[in-house]
Amino acid sequence: MDKNSCIGVFDSGIGGLTVVKGIVDSLPNEKIVYFGDTAHVPYGTRSKRQVVKYVLDDVDFIKQYDIKAIVIACNTADSLARAKVEEENPDIPVFGVVHPASKRAAAMTKNNKIGVIATKATANSKAYDRAIAKYNPAAQVFDVGCPLMVPLAENGRFELGDIVPETVVQEYLDPLVAEGIDTLILGCTHFPLFTDIIREHYPDLQLISSSGAAAENLKEYLTAHDLLRTEPGGDHKYFVSDDASLVEDIAHYFMGKALDSHVEQISVG
Amino acid sequence: MDKNSCIGVFDSGIGGLTVVKGIVDSLPNEKIVYFGDTAHVPYGTRSKRQVVKYVLDDVDFIKQYDIKAIVIACNTADSLARAKVEEENPDIPVFGVVHPASKRAAAMTKNNKIGVIATKATANSKAYDRAIAKYNPAAQVFDVGCPLMVPLAENGRFELGDIVPETVVQEYLDPLVAEGIDTLILGCTHFPLFTDIIREHYPDLQLISSSGAAAENLKEYLTAHDLLRTEPGGDHKYFVSDDASLVEDIAHYFMGKALDSHVEQISVG
Repeated sequence: MDKNSCIGVFDSGIGGLTVVKGIVDSLPNEKIVYFGDTAHVPYGTRSKRQVVKYVLDDVDFIKQYDIKAIVIACNTADSLARAKVEEENPDIPVFGVVHPASKRAAAMTKNNKIGVIATKATANSKAYDRAIAKYNPAAQVFDVGCPLMVPLAENGRFELGDIVPETVVQEYLDPLVAEGIDTLILGCTHFPLFTDIIREHYPDLQLISSSGAAAENLKEYLTAHDLLRTEPGGDHKYFVSDDASLVEDIAHYFMGKALDSHVEQISVG
Repeated sequence: MDKNSCIGVFDSGIGGLTVVKGIVDSLPNEKIVYFGDTAHVPYGTRSKRQVVKYVLDDVDFIKQYDIKAIVIACNTADSLARAKVEEENPDIPVFGVVHPASKRAAAMTKNNKIGVIATKATANSKAYDRAIAKYNPAAQVFDVGCPLMVPLAENGRFELGDIVPETVVQEYLDPLVAEGIDTLILGCTHFPLFTDIIREHYPDLQLISSSGAAAENLKEYLTAHDLLRTEPGGDHKYFVSDDASLVEDIAHYFMGKALDSHVEQISVG
């Protein structure tokens, strides 16, 4: 691997495109290979054993390319399968979403009370609690599984003024705010879509997107290790494991615009 | 196979338990083997190719038991993979949910306008349109994919007075009612849970549960072919393809009560 190698990004589906968006915005020269495991999405309602099995297949696919970094662009996959991915890939640096967001939250909180909204599997894993404790042992962490937010996001239901997501978001967040949190981690790659609703109802909360934090963390690493690609205009390849047409209509929710290349279906597992 | 053989029922997850409930209520002597493919749930957002692949694995599992009937207790699986299941299992009678509900709706409608609420995959397949046309060529069918109703049901969000499901159900149903339908098929095994909300807002609609219709259809067949089990108290076995603990907490939504035996995890595919 060298500067011109790709960044390999994978997710259970297409939420990880919010991470790709962050990478493209801050590292426009990089070549990216993205894989969304849409034949098995969602991961966030499944068991650890099942998620680990799917994640190892995802990594096997991504490794067919010449990659200089693996980015686990899915909080559930990062929370449940990170250790296994690192163990099986000792020669490739592995980046996630949980640690970058935890580090930032640990530094930003003023009152040491941090909330985390995530999938059920991520919340149950307590991965954020462990990561935040590493960076700020005094911090208290309040996590909550938010199983309705992923389907709402995938159906475009995240706009301010829509009573359905507004009600659901407040149901999940009110108890965390009642605990006195001053900082909230959006611990699922789908959740940056709810930023407007959260800001409207909780204007005092400091919001941390795990997607944005992951992209910055990757940039720091590539810079420090002289692995930034310098030729302009890296290309981006997108692959999914179910029919590509199922995601092409909604990918723009997550990328903020239409994808710059076609999505191709491949077979895994 | 004989009278004492099992009824093999499968679904993408646990929505099919509404079909099991119907079978247990009307055929309490029958032995049932249920398989929910929770490692791959949901089917309703996936492609036909992917659903067919998963369904054939489901049937392979169920066929390890001595079965006298296969019940496809999932509208998406029945809509997309029924033909393939029949083709590969010529010696076992195959029952579904689409035809029994279609036959009943075709007979019940007074104005020949029938609505169908279903998953996206079922609605897109037009399986209900074709089935209803067979029983009542004069009927007009209005189907709509309702992707938020499955996650709402699985999170216990179907009670009258809950603004989230009340809003979502009305968004899906108002356009069908505006078309003048007098009969509505609940074309997903999760949807009987929304009966109270639908009755409250649309008291004049005739509701047909695909789950209830499927159980009645099975009873008619077994009766006509002298295949009813006569010994009392058939036992019920439940299997899933992801961790059993993930479903044991919510199975009662669909069965109307706790399951009468433990759920066991098995591996498929």
